[in-house]
Amino acid sequence: MKNSMWSGRFSGASDELLKQFNASLDIDKTLYKQDIEGSIAHATMLENCKILQKNELDAIIKGLREIEKEIESKRFVFDIKDEDIHMAIEKRLSELIGFEIGGKLHTARSRNDQVATDFKLFVRQSNQELQFLLKELIKTLLIHAKEHKTTLMPSFTHLQHAQIVSFSFYILAYAFMFLRDIKRLKSSFDLADFSPLGSCACAGTSYATNSLMSAKILNFKDIMPNAMDAVSDRDFALDLLYDIAVIFTHTSRLCEELILFSSSEFSFITLSDSFSTGSSIMPQKKNPDVCELIRGKTGRIYGNLISLLTTMKALPLAYNKDMQEDKEGVFDSIKTAKDSLIILNAMLKELTIHKENMLKACKKGHLLATDLADFLVREKNIPFRKAHFIVGELVAEAEKQGVDISELKDLSKINPIFDEKASHILDFEFSLNSKKSQGSSSVQSVEKQIEILEDFLKS
Amino acid sequence: MKNSMWSGRFSGASDELLKQFNASLDIDKTLYKQDIEGSIAHATMLENCKILQKNELDAIIKGLREIEKEIESKRFVFDIKDEDIHMAIEKRLSELIGFEIGGKLHTARSRNDQVATDFKLFVRQSNQELQFLLKELIKTLLIHAKEHKTTLMPSFTHLQHAQIVSFSFYILAYAFMFLRDIKRLKSSFDLADFSPLGSCACAGTSYATNSLMSAKILNFKDIMPNAMDAVSDRDFALDLLYDIAVIFTHTSRLCEELILFSSSEFSFITLSDSFSTGSSIMPQKKNPDVCELIRGKTGRIYGNLISLLTTMKALPLAYNKDMQEDKEGVFDSIKTAKDSLIILNAMLKELTIHKENMLKACKKGHLLATDLADFLVREKNIPFRKAHFIVGELVAEAEKQGVDISELKDLSKINPIFDEKASHILDFEFSLNSKKSQGSSSVQSVEKQIEILEDFLKS
Amino acid sequence: MKNSMWSGRFSGASDELLKQFNASLDIDKTLYKQDIEGSIAHATMLENCKILQKNELDAIIKGLREIEKEIESKRFVFDIKDEDIHMAIEKRLSELIGFEIGGKLHTARSRNDQVATDFKLFVRQSNQELQFLLKELIKTLLIHAKEHKTTLMPSFTHLQHAQIVSFSFYILAYAFMFLRDIKRLKSSFDLADFSPLGSCACAGTSYATNSLMSAKILNFKDIMPNAMDAVSDRDFALDLLYDIAVIFTHTSRLCEELILFSSSEFSFITLSDSFSTGSSIMPQKKNPDVCELIRGKTGRIYGNLISLLTTMKALPLAYNKDMQEDKEGVFDSIKTAKDSLIILNAMLKELTIHKENMLKACKKGHLLATDLADFLVREKNIPFRKAHFIVGELVAEAEKQGVDISELKDLSKINPIFDEKASHILDFEFSLNSKKSQGSSSVQSVEKQIEILEDFLKS
Amino acid sequence: MKNSMWSGRFSGASDELLKQFNASLDIDKTLYKQDIEGSIAHATMLENCKILQKNELDAIIKGLREIEKEIESKRFVFDIKDEDIHMAIEKRLSELIGFEIGGKLHTARSRNDQVATDFKLFVRQSNQELQFLLKELIKTLLIHAKEHKTTLMPSFTHLQHAQIVSFSFYILAYAFMFLRDIKRLKSSFDLADFSPLGSCACAGTSYATNSLMSAKILNFKDIMPNAMDAVSDRDFALDLLYDIAVIFTHTSRLCEELILFSSSEFSFITLSDSFSTGSSIMPQKKNPDVCELIRGKTGRIYGNLISLLTTMKALPLAYNKDMQEDKEGVFDSIKTAKDSLIILNAMLKELTIHKENMLKACKKGHLLATDLADFLVREKNIPFRKAHFIVGELVAEAEKQGVDISELKDLSKINPIFDEKASHILDFEFSLNSKKSQGSSSVQSVEKQIEILEDFLKS
Repeated sequence: MKNSMWSGRFSGASDELLKQFNASLDIDKTLYKQDIEGSIAHATMLENCKILQKNELDAIIKGLREIEKEIESKRFVFDIKDEDIHMAIEKRLSELIGFEIGGKLHTARSRNDQVATDFKLFVRQSNQELQFLLKELIKTLLIHAKEHKTTLMPSFTHLQHAQIVSFSFYILAYAFMFLRDIKRLKSSFDLADFSPLGSCACAGTSYATNSLMSAKILNFKDIMPNAMDAVSDRDFALDLLYDIAVIFTHTSRLCEELILFSSSEFSFITLSDSFSTGSSIMPQKKNPDVCELIRGKTGRIYGNLISLLTTMKALPLAYNKDMQEDKEGVFDSIKTAKDSLIILNAMLKELTIHKENMLKACKKGHLLATDLADFLVREKNIPFRKAHFIVGELVAEAEKQGVDISELKDLSKINPIFDEKASHILDFEFSLNSKKSQGSSSVQSVEKQIEILEDFLKS
Repeated sequence: MKNSMWSGRFSGASDELLKQFNASLDIDKTLYKQDIEGSIAHATMLENCKILQKNELDAIIKGLREIEKEIESKRFVFDIKDEDIHMAIEKRLSELIGFEIGGKLHTARSRNDQVATDFKLFVRQSNQELQFLLKELIKTLLIHAKEHKTTLMPSFTHLQHAQIVSFSFYILAYAFMFLRDIKRLKSSFDLADFSPLGSCACAGTSYATNSLMSAKILNFKDIMPNAMDAVSDRDFALDLLYDIAVIFTHTSRLCEELILFSSSEFSFITLSDSFSTGSSIMPQKKNPDVCELIRGKTGRIYGNLISLLTTMKALPLAYNKDMQEDKEGVFDSIKTAKDSLIILNAMLKELTIHKENMLKACKKGHLLATDLADFLVREKNIPFRKAHFIVGELVAEAEKQGVDISELKDLSKINPIFDEKASHILDFEFSLNSKKSQGSSSVQSVEKQIEILEDFLKS
Repeated sequence: MKNSMWSGRFSGASDELLKQFNASLDIDKTLYKQDIEGSIAHATMLENCKILQKNELDAIIKGLREIEKEIESKRFVFDIKDEDIHMAIEKRLSELIGFEIGGKLHTARSRNDQVATDFKLFVRQSNQELQFLLKELIKTLLIHAKEHKTTLMPSFTHLQHAQIVSFSFYILAYAFMFLRDIKRLKSSFDLADFSPLGSCACAGTSYATNSLMSAKILNFKDIMPNAMDAVSDRDFALDLLYDIAVIFTHTSRLCEELILFSSSEFSFITLSDSFSTGSSIMPQKKNPDVCELIRGKTGRIYGNLISLLTTMKALPLAYNKDMQEDKEGVFDSIKTAKDSLIILNAMLKELTIHKENMLKACKKGHLLATDLADFLVREKNIPFRKAHFIVGELVAEAEKQGVDISELKDLSKINPIFDEKASHILDFEFSLNSKKSQGSSSVQSVEKQIEILEDFLKS
Repeated sequence: MKNSMWSGRFSGASDELLKQFNASLDIDKTLYKQDIEGSIAHATMLENCKILQKNELDAIIKGLREIEKEIESKRFVFDIKDEDIHMAIEKRLSELIGFEIGGKLHTARSRNDQVATDFKLFVRQSNQELQFLLKELIKTLLIHAKEHKTTLMPSFTHLQHAQIVSFSFYILAYAFMFLRDIKRLKSSFDLADFSPLGSCACAGTSYATNSLMSAKILNFKDIMPNAMDAVSDRDFALDLLYDIAVIFTHTSRLCEELILFSSSEFSFITLSDSFSTGSSIMPQKKNPDVCELIRGKTGRIYGNLISLLTTMKALPLAYNKDMQEDKEGVFDSIKTAKDSLIILNAMLKELTIHKENMLKACKKGHLLATDLADFLVREKNIPFRKAHFIVGELVAEAEKQGVDISELKDLSKINPIFDEKASHILDFEFSLNSKKSQGSSSVQSVEKQIEILEDFLKS
């Protein structure tokens, strides 16, 4: 390695590099809308408290709305010299309405509480958007659940065939995961329902402000009770990062199964062409790209959580510049989660389910052997161990014939204990509906589960 | 490296090693109490549903209570051959009351729902214990908060002196963090208030059980609505791991500051001897060991969270043996958190606060310069920029004299604008109480904050 | 929640709790052997430098060897009051040989460099043990690789059938991963080949010691050049944690595939009974418990890495008590890795490979379609696009017949371009060996790969 | 929350969203240079193996160089429809030189080995750049080390004053950390010195290629021996992510100390204005923004590591779309590390060191008490415990006088054992140089350390 190769390129920290390193504008310009709303709420409160004049307030609001339009129509010039979105908007405001009035907006406020407010507003809105998207996803799962109450498939434990269930019952397991995710988001929202605006640098201000009023304008339930905590706190961002991490624990499990189930070996489902890539020459080949991407993105989601936890570890109060690192990962997790949920939902809508292949799979593994043993114990009053022995003989016979026990004929010839009632046990659909416990795979129980979910969606 | 060095020691996987690798008994024996309570609830329900006889139920309960006593008096023999606590207790039960009855306990239940129930019961109890310990901690912070409403100290941003606050206001910032932690735990508790017991392997059972009844006996609000989700779910464990991670984000910040504040350079506080180690020869030397340990343990707390997230990623439904890895990290985080909170609380109770050193620190950095400028703007109607210029001159004069601006005399000689009212501004206590905004560092605001916390503790 | 429930149990930080919290003895007693070796090396050097007398050295060595025997025969009494293994051994030494001499062992040494040395010695030995175990694993993979050079199986991309390979080629991919793991461990070993012993608290000592001598006795290549770095450094522990993390990235991939391949749907392999659990009633059911556990343990391995990274983040120099948290995760990762590699190796030795099922799988997906198209381009000089069109027709015909293109007969009837040479292309074994590039799946290339690995193992 | 709020915005997965979700172009266009170099190497080899004609090779190279210029002059149109940089360049090549020839470039190569090659080339180059930047940083540390061999300061353990050292000795601790970082990078480079190019999809190709030749052109030492491993492997990316994580463990410690040392309480150093932000009104206020940012960025660096580990966990062979997630975190860690090292270096160059404040700090804590006790043991042959008692009396006397023991006068009056030689011990500079062990803080040892580093830099 010749050092000279780089000596030119890395010739000290240019002013430009330093400026970029310090600036957060590229990232936090995402918050322009929240910044404007926050400023309008703050100014409205200042006017109400006689700190601003009515005409000053009007000018400020008009200026800020004008800036909003400039940004949304791409006319706004972002200049890295402004360092962050707050400064960029503030400077532009003074250009538009004069520094005399524009400069007053920052009365009884500091960058520290302003950035906390903007960020919290964004996190709250994203939280609600994720709740909405999860509900949409549950709706799609419900469509399949309603259609496949008697579509039989093997359930798996240890990736080995376990018991007969319906596709409906199986897919509802995910619906209840996503329902929990919505509840978790709701809790995080409530925990973040306190406004930091008005806390100033970290100790409040000598102006007689009314931060509860600006909080209400911004739809917060209340204010943060301690100003130092208010500007030091990033729990609300951690909470959302974690909520998204759990969502991806769930989506990664679902996507893993969609990949498995669409493999040549399983062939339980086919993904729509829009969500897979194929081969011009091998017509049946469909790579489940979207499922793999969502599963793979679990990595960045976990990483973003650990990033902010690490950054916040052992930081003295109150604001430290380390905290400027709080946004990028949160924005990334939010975007990734929203896109993934939208696409997952669309993909699930177009899922093709191969009932016949699932049914064929049910016939591997003598899945009804335990049903039969349970039956002997329950109905024929045969002791557990003896029941197992009897069923074991039956399985051995089936293996000898090279069939599944459900395919055996004339059971009574093998053992007279197997009367007609016993034969019923070896029927898959009967097995499914023989389940009597709450939350089970029977059609009746599945219908109850659907009801619970629909009630939740309505609420 | 000579391979022969180890060839003896690593001669294949001995049966013993394999047994240990598969077994979870060393870890999950922690759950013995939950396992017994769960079994009693299950048996009670079975009897109620006519699946067990009254005399069978009595025998089972008597046997289980006997086992509980054996374990608590260390008479119980844990044998790794039993693999897990569930098997160990079940086997012992059959020894005590006979297999005929003992074997019936496992009717309409499987290992999968049993382990989920036991673990969830433990997580729920630990959740409540942590809530209790956090409340105790807040109580201790309140003692200091009540005593130090006018104990002046500099607040810090960027570890640089920022504004005058009181120690009370400062320490209350942490009280509000811990209050949030309690609320977060409470939300997680509610999210976990659904019993998996009765879900069996993953699809329910053909016995006509009543799992809502066993859920109620175990103080759950309701049952898990879908059996497959019930046995596959570990969200409740993740939630607690995360809640603890946020607690340690907060304790690590507090401990960092206690370490800083007890350094020779700061000398704001002295830790009690019990919580620090000294030197026989250097009397003033006190290593803040306990603070360092709590700060350092943040590592394992974050690690335990990422561990379980990683384990759960992309696991197909329903139970997989990977999930046996769920407990060790959770137990470790719970124990670490409980011990740390107890010790932190005890240490904070014995904290010595050096008011005079904190006051001395207030006099570094012309902390009141902005107060003065604000005053000129607000009261004297001087434009912002001119106010800054005037105060700048004053600071320059102070620097020349080698004092803080708060120590300058005869301000009016320097600039006649500084009348008596202005002199007041340069008084630290006045500055503290001049704050008028909600959540600020003024005595009045601090008293309001104390009230909020005390109301919360009462609720 | 009634607070009174716990008020008794959590009544302040008892002395006992505090002692346990501070102590590391339960964890670091693992280091007893390293502590004794380190002390003997240190004493030997002290005597050589005339700081100890010959008779003092003899007494110290005799005493330490006695303690070693006591510990190994379980006669040694570990008392938590001694806090750590170093203190426990030192105290016992003074009991055995008197404080007059025993106390001199700590001359020109401090706890800080002693603990760093002991820990590094342990990490280095574990590193070598892991290298050994990985080599053993490669040897087992080589046995399969030699036997299955022509055992055909489909390779997968996106879990979809991709190309024909041999089981040998497939399993060698893992051998090369483990070879890289050995090299990575070797690099970490070299990076840790510098002794911290003699660095004392952080600045060295005024005794004229020769720490290079003690380093050499302990088989270090050299000493750490700067004493402050020596006691502050835990890179060596991080390096091993990371090396193990990468090993588990590899073992988790292998275990995932073993689980897949032993599922009913794939049926490519069967795991030996010792490494799976079955069902008394369902004979073919085999849960791949060991594979699932190894895959699941990836969580704790990643967690341990993130733990120590977090703990070390932003710690001021030199020693801080936070660093006492360095060992538990490292010990856990080492034990987990060693056990997992031993068991994985034993399991792989007893793997049953179902050639016929793998071959059957090759016939799904028209895997030779691209081979055929390549052939037309290469040998028949047909343009790429036209070749694809021609092969597409063939695939369509096969689909119509419900067979794989490799099962089509009389190709020339379908299209005369398919002469006898073309028919060869549709032979799986021919396809395997038609690969000509370096590193490919051909028998010749696989033999070259085996040679590379065997040469490496010899070195 | 009104669902209708978003129903418009999230109306299913638009084609546009799906395209963006699948595409990696925005990220992997960073690899354009590597892609072009890789293609030229591949084409050159193909021509050498008679698979391409000389005129075809010439056209391909000319076309690729033209594309390179287009990209570097921003004339190249990136179109998300092309999905990735490889496709974008390939398509443009065919536009420039015709599909007839352009299409042949992809002979005996697939996307899988191409992307692995490009990414590895980029990682390797970044590895070398980081080595270069770390060397530059060491050079800067050496400048301070040479100047401050006798600049006294207290060393710290537990953030408490420990022993007298020089600033030179202190700063060299970091130089040796960065030296280790360079060695670790070097090892990772060697481990990644094997080319995947020519492995094709996962099994090699039937073309008689010479991938060793293309490897050599690209400056690889050798090829990956197994094609399936070659396309499945991302160890090289993990290795760099980890190496950078350790670098940030070190830089976060340094930055933590720079923040502490530049606080008002320590006042050991002043950061240059370019690397801190101030206040117009409080002249001494300097926020150490750059240090805080580098410390805070440790979060994203750890996060990026855990991200890729998570993504790679349990992935079946060979290529899966999950692996498309491999680049963004790596690019981010590389850029963050390079920028941080450049800026840290520039900041350290302009560091102002306040010798007098450091010296003043030395006089807090009776730092020489242990030196004195050691002296009594070593030179006066006084038993250890008695020596401690004697020095304890002296410290008590100093405390009474309110001075440090180094400031006591007429020691012999206090205890006649303190002769003139003893008085020397209480001299800071004497203490520094009394250290005789290797690696200690004495001037002589520091000079040796500087020599080691300079030799390393030359090598």
